[in-house]
Amino acid sequence: MRIIVSGICGHMGKEVVSASLRGYRGAVTVGGVDIRSDRGAEIPVAGGFAEAKEIFGVGEADCIIDFSHHSCTAELLSFAVAKGMPAVLATTGQTEEELALIADAAKKIPVFFSANMSLGVALLVELAKKAAAAMPDAQIEIIEKHHIRKLDAPSGTAIMLANEIQSVRPSAYTVLGRSGHGKRTPEEIGIHAIRMGNIVGEHEVILGTDTQTITLKHEAHDRALFAEGALAAAEFLIGKGAGLYNMHDIVAD
Amino acid sequence: MRIIVSGICGHMGKEVVSASLRGYRGAVTVGGVDIRSDRGAEIPVAGGFAEAKEIFGVGEADCIIDFSHHSCTAELLSFAVAKGMPAVLATTGQTEEELALIADAAKKIPVFFSANMSLGVALLVELAKKAAAAMPDAQIEIIEKHHIRKLDAPSGTAIMLANEIQSVRPSAYTVLGRSGHGKRTPEEIGIHAIRMGNIVGEHEVILGTDTQTITLKHEAHDRALFAEGALAAAEFLIGKGAGLYNMHDIVAD
Amino acid sequence: MRIIVSGICGHMGKEVVSASLRGYRGAVTVGGVDIRSDRGAEIPVAGGFAEAKEIFGVGEADCIIDFSHHSCTAELLSFAVAKGMPAVLATTGQTEEELALIADAAKKIPVFFSANMSLGVALLVELAKKAAAAMPDAQIEIIEKHHIRKLDAPSGTAIMLANEIQSVRPSAYTVLGRSGHGKRTPEEIGIHAIRMGNIVGEHEVILGTDTQTITLKHEAHDRALFAEGALAAAEFLIGKGAGLYNMHDIVAD
Amino acid sequence: MRIIVSGICGHMGKEVVSASLRGYRGAVTVGGVDIRSDRGAEIPVAGGFAEAKEIFGVGEADCIIDFSHHSCTAELLSFAVAKGMPAVLATTGQTEEELALIADAAKKIPVFFSANMSLGVALLVELAKKAAAAMPDAQIEIIEKHHIRKLDAPSGTAIMLANEIQSVRPSAYTVLGRSGHGKRTPEEIGIHAIRMGNIVGEHEVILGTDTQTITLKHEAHDRALFAEGALAAAEFLIGKGAGLYNMHDIVAD
Repeated sequence: MRIIVSGICGHMGKEVVSASLRGYRGAVTVGGVDIRSDRGAEIPVAGGFAEAKEIFGVGEADCIIDFSHHSCTAELLSFAVAKGMPAVLATTGQTEEELALIADAAKKIPVFFSANMSLGVALLVELAKKAAAAMPDAQIEIIEKHHIRKLDAPSGTAIMLANEIQSVRPSAYTVLGRSGHGKRTPEEIGIHAIRMGNIVGEHEVILGTDTQTITLKHEAHDRALFAEGALAAAEFLIGKGAGLYNMHDIVAD
Repeated sequence: MRIIVSGICGHMGKEVVSASLRGYRGAVTVGGVDIRSDRGAEIPVAGGFAEAKEIFGVGEADCIIDFSHHSCTAELLSFAVAKGMPAVLATTGQTEEELALIADAAKKIPVFFSANMSLGVALLVELAKKAAAAMPDAQIEIIEKHHIRKLDAPSGTAIMLANEIQSVRPSAYTVLGRSGHGKRTPEEIGIHAIRMGNIVGEHEVILGTDTQTITLKHEAHDRALFAEGALAAAEFLIGKGAGLYNMHDIVAD
Repeated sequence: MRIIVSGICGHMGKEVVSASLRGYRGAVTVGGVDIRSDRGAEIPVAGGFAEAKEIFGVGEADCIIDFSHHSCTAELLSFAVAKGMPAVLATTGQTEEELALIADAAKKIPVFFSANMSLGVALLVELAKKAAAAMPDAQIEIIEKHHIRKLDAPSGTAIMLANEIQSVRPSAYTVLGRSGHGKRTPEEIGIHAIRMGNIVGEHEVILGTDTQTITLKHEAHDRALFAEGALAAAEFLIGKGAGLYNMHDIVAD
Repeated sequence: MRIIVSGICGHMGKEVVSASLRGYRGAVTVGGVDIRSDRGAEIPVAGGFAEAKEIFGVGEADCIIDFSHHSCTAELLSFAVAKGMPAVLATTGQTEEELALIADAAKKIPVFFSANMSLGVALLVELAKKAAAAMPDAQIEIIEKHHIRKLDAPSGTAIMLANEIQSVRPSAYTVLGRSGHGKRTPEEIGIHAIRMGNIVGEHEVILGTDTQTITLKHEAHDRALFAEGALAAAEFLIGKGAGLYNMHDIVAD
């Protein structure tokens, strides 16, 4: 698949190019859009979407991936709709207005928009929900591990995991850390935050009964996994009808 | 749900009664069938299916679970069809003739028949297939651990796991243990057999790329999990239409 | 080695007999002491220490192990000193007076007295202290797992582990659970209490830096390990001079 | 402590400087020796040991660390002996002649010479030997994990680990991978080689009985750990008498 990368000169944009150079999901980066001009000549890079509309023809790429900034959302969607090109939005912080534009564009083209570009974390969420539903009598605990510079405990991803599990276990509630006197209730989801070394991010969901235990763990080793997630999203999006898609749609496919 | 247990005086039959006594999946054992007569009076136990047909009326139980012996399959199915009662067959070693009877009965009542009554292992298989499909570029390894009395290495369950993963990765093949010189290929599924202490059974599937790792593990602590699996099957079966079901249907539900 | 078991009719006394029957550490149970008389005839059992003094001669056993009750300490030590027999005390709750008797007896015979009869936990403590000393810049976290009936969180063993680590890291302090905002300090030892299923007891000490991680874990599967710990103590004690010994002496040997 | 780094312009030399800049073990790099001249001016770097003898006075540094090449051993030791400076040799491949020079120098100054500069791996070896001695009835298994580019399976470190364990269990022998029919013997040490993603190196020793399991794991995250190991060696060496020391001496201290 042929990809245009918006924000190609940024850190994540470069990671997308790098992943496509090693052939990840058969991706080829055929162009870029970036206001910064330090990009080499081997890939054509437009300085903005006005220029992009001129230099990239309809059908020249199979998908556009955006790792620039949410403020570029309007122009990017206008470009994608004009070219009939699926769009993967990997930026965050959209305004209400921008969110409305995304909903609008999704009526005309396939749009992928996800708070978390980690395919592995989305997969962990999906598997954990499946396991929680299949083992209704299991106690659930979540252990997350991050580097020592992290300020919040537990991680946002751990809380999101617990929330998603609660969607299949409405009576569940979270306990952050656990200390003191008294038995845990069956409804508790204990969340435990380990802080150590340089750990990029690790999330483990454990479901246990008296007779068996299921453990599901995701470890992130490198932030390049977000670039890979965007390419997996592009692969998923190509050929789909107009609509709004996210990571959940990929892993539940 | 109200259960009749065939083979109620055997080891696994007793485990089903014990699980229902602690309220597992809301089960109540309302009757039993067993040629052995050492059962106490608190639950009515028929000495065979002829007697069972007399003492248990239509609608008296919601499901019958069979932990007796495959040679009882014909009589048990005849009883279940006559009463219109869903049947969970948890015996193995059926003859061709018996398998044909199962297929026949499944046209009239819901029949659950699974080589492995472990809900957790079936769940692991399901999750591993989902993960293997979502992470096509991941290398896969399987580690299994069992007690030191186990004769075969790797375990049949580990091989079954690899086979199931191959159903979503046709080019994969297994390597039992790994030693010598040369790189692993992307298609290899390494299977590693640890033998130690009194471990009931542990299976771990690891899927790893350069950027992330997903680990899925099932640990069996107690063979009572097979009784629980049969009760989960009964719960699943009640209300279903005629047909043949197995553990895969529960966890993929 | 030939063993006399005090409290031989109790749960742990029976575990000692059982371990010696399977040849653990080459132990043979040659006699017992118990006020209960339900013991079979294959091993001579005295109904009390007065009777024991008569029926067991000097040199008839290599060690006496006590799993009865701390109130028997005085009589047991008087017997052991009279026979010149090493004594392993595996009871708890001794009074000040009894502790003084233990100190006295330890001047004449080798006495083993330990709050925890788990050789594995003592080994974990020893290894964790060694690792903490060798990796002075590592952050340390402790994760413990127990069954859902446990009332206190974290476990006494986890707190003891942290205290022992503090003996080689005087500036360390514990944090029970971790939640909220702010970086962990290098001196924190986080303790995390998982409650799940029927877990007998699991303690994990993790020491991590930016470049490497050491993980040390002990899992208890069966309370028979305390009987084995007492036999390992007996093996250690035989041939030693008078003195007071504990599990630390075995694993640091 | 003040350090001179031989091979300061090489990859590992730079890692030593970097570790000292972040204050690892209180190290300060006060000088370097390297035939390459691309080093900045902030640290004085001699182009060879003749020059080093001139510009670095006796007492100007507390230790010299060598990450250059074994062919520099003779000159480096002559320098270190002349200045009375402890020396950490972190190169490999020494000739017989060079080994003899090392033995000679160790009569006059403290010399640290170790095949493996990983403090963590040396610690794992030490802990595994201690555990194997304390649990004579445990079965032992080793699992190692490395990246997919690794050619040999199992790793040299895993084999070294097994050899070291055999020093406390003379009847033990290794089984590389395990497959086929038949029980494991108590003397087997199974070694299992996982190959996956970009794993720098992970070694796990598991010791299990029917009643308990001890798991010891080392994970390497970054090759900078060898630089840290050399600095830990320097710290250990300073103040010691003449002699030949290695990683084992540090962790067994």
